[in-house]
Amino acid sequence: MNSIQRLVIIGSGNVATHMATAFKEAGLDICGIYSRTVDNAQVLAEKLSVNVFKSLTEIPLDADAYLLAVSDSALPEILKQLPALDGILMHTSGSVGLDVFSESLKRSAVFYPLQTFSKAKQIDFSKVPILLESADTTVLNALQNLGKRISEIVKIIDSEQRKQLHLSAVFMCNFSNYMFHISEELLKENNLDFELLKPLLGETIEKLNSLSPAEAQTGPAIRNDKKTLNEHLEMLKNHPEYQNIYQLISDQIQKLKS
Amino acid sequence: MNSIQRLVIIGSGNVATHMATAFKEAGLDICGIYSRTVDNAQVLAEKLSVNVFKSLTEIPLDADAYLLAVSDSALPEILKQLPALDGILMHTSGSVGLDVFSESLKRSAVFYPLQTFSKAKQIDFSKVPILLESADTTVLNALQNLGKRISEIVKIIDSEQRKQLHLSAVFMCNFSNYMFHISEELLKENNLDFELLKPLLGETIEKLNSLSPAEAQTGPAIRNDKKTLNEHLEMLKNHPEYQNIYQLISDQIQKLKS
Repeated sequence: MNSIQRLVIIGSGNVATHMATAFKEAGLDICGIYSRTVDNAQVLAEKLSVNVFKSLTEIPLDADAYLLAVSDSALPEILKQLPALDGILMHTSGSVGLDVFSESLKRSAVFYPLQTFSKAKQIDFSKVPILLESADTTVLNALQNLGKRISEIVKIIDSEQRKQLHLSAVFMCNFSNYMFHISEELLKENNLDFELLKPLLGETIEKLNSLSPAEAQTGPAIRNDKKTLNEHLEMLKNHPEYQNIYQLISDQIQKLKS
Repeated sequence: MNSIQRLVIIGSGNVATHMATAFKEAGLDICGIYSRTVDNAQVLAEKLSVNVFKSLTEIPLDADAYLLAVSDSALPEILKQLPALDGILMHTSGSVGLDVFSESLKRSAVFYPLQTFSKAKQIDFSKVPILLESADTTVLNALQNLGKRISEIVKIIDSEQRKQLHLSAVFMCNFSNYMFHISEELLKENNLDFELLKPLLGETIEKLNSLSPAEAQTGPAIRNDKKTLNEHLEMLKNHPEYQNIYQLISDQIQKLKS
């Protein structure tokens, strides 16, 4: 079985909503939605014109696949409650391994969309990387075909790589976002508008299309501009925690040159 | 005199090139280019179909303004060599104060474009914030009119604010770029492609259009997900310097909640 056509959605949060919508638009047959949050399930089911299953005992036993788009903490409990199923079971979590599935479930997999989803905001799913894992080659083939129906970027990675990817994403997105926060705080204190720096940020991101971050590095640290580095540390004297971050990252950036 | 029409360009690097081009396109009369790097001056002059001045003694004494788009270190020397001029003198540096001009030069100003320029890459100047400073109100008025001819965003700020803006830009752009570098290094070690994280980065930046960075903060630190935080620190054990950064920034992010 290389083709998944009949799909059951379990979950009704942001991930479930965006994925179910993408699958529906790609022409898959969504058998219905189950969610412990019945109201959310109803909203999603109405949006997609499909059934709501009020209990896990109601879900069809003969679907090709079951998408478990629920929180990491809810996953083990849902798995326990599932009836015996022949179709492929797949969870969507970046931080949960394949080992959440019991050994008896050979047809299990991870179908992980690497993106942050907001309820309100549409997303172009074709640009969302889909990361797959399964111990079963036939399942992997089926999931690759499924992934390609909604995204241009479909890769097979193992649990260790998925964890490394998550760690990298923390630096890339969560920590850079915190740098934006410090920046905004300093601007506010000086009655300056955060908007002023957005064009510069735009170019910083744009540069990554042609240069590696190390090649694109600019600023006083990489220039070894000691006068400016000292001035900046002095300007941060009322923010010892920002001063620490400034010092630590500037020291690291200076090592890039060697 | 509220209208600047005849402009002399001093400098021929990235900033001079992009600004002179924007001014030319906006219909200003570029009298010519002077640069200590004669070859560069020649290239820019040909591009704009204007004169090259081989020496500072050749520049016209009756232009409305003189744009000094040279490096911070070259600025004092160029200023010393300039003949007596009636027009407005303006430098383009983010980190040099008004005090670089001698007191006798009343008609002096800062005309600072807050953007990073690359020789190869065209830029939409209308979106580049122009930050102005001058002790003279008439000069400021003239510069506001001039700035509006090339950009939609023209603001008057003082030297202290300009310094704070530069410090904020270090966090916003230079330090976030270093976070991208760490991310890329970790991905490389695990045979993962940097491209995989770019859609997620795109959404992280996009969110800043509707949320403050503090509101947009996600990740294990803000969730106080101790299990993941400890796992990540353990995964970084071969990179003590990244481990330090991970710990320091995660501690700070956790303070956002209170």
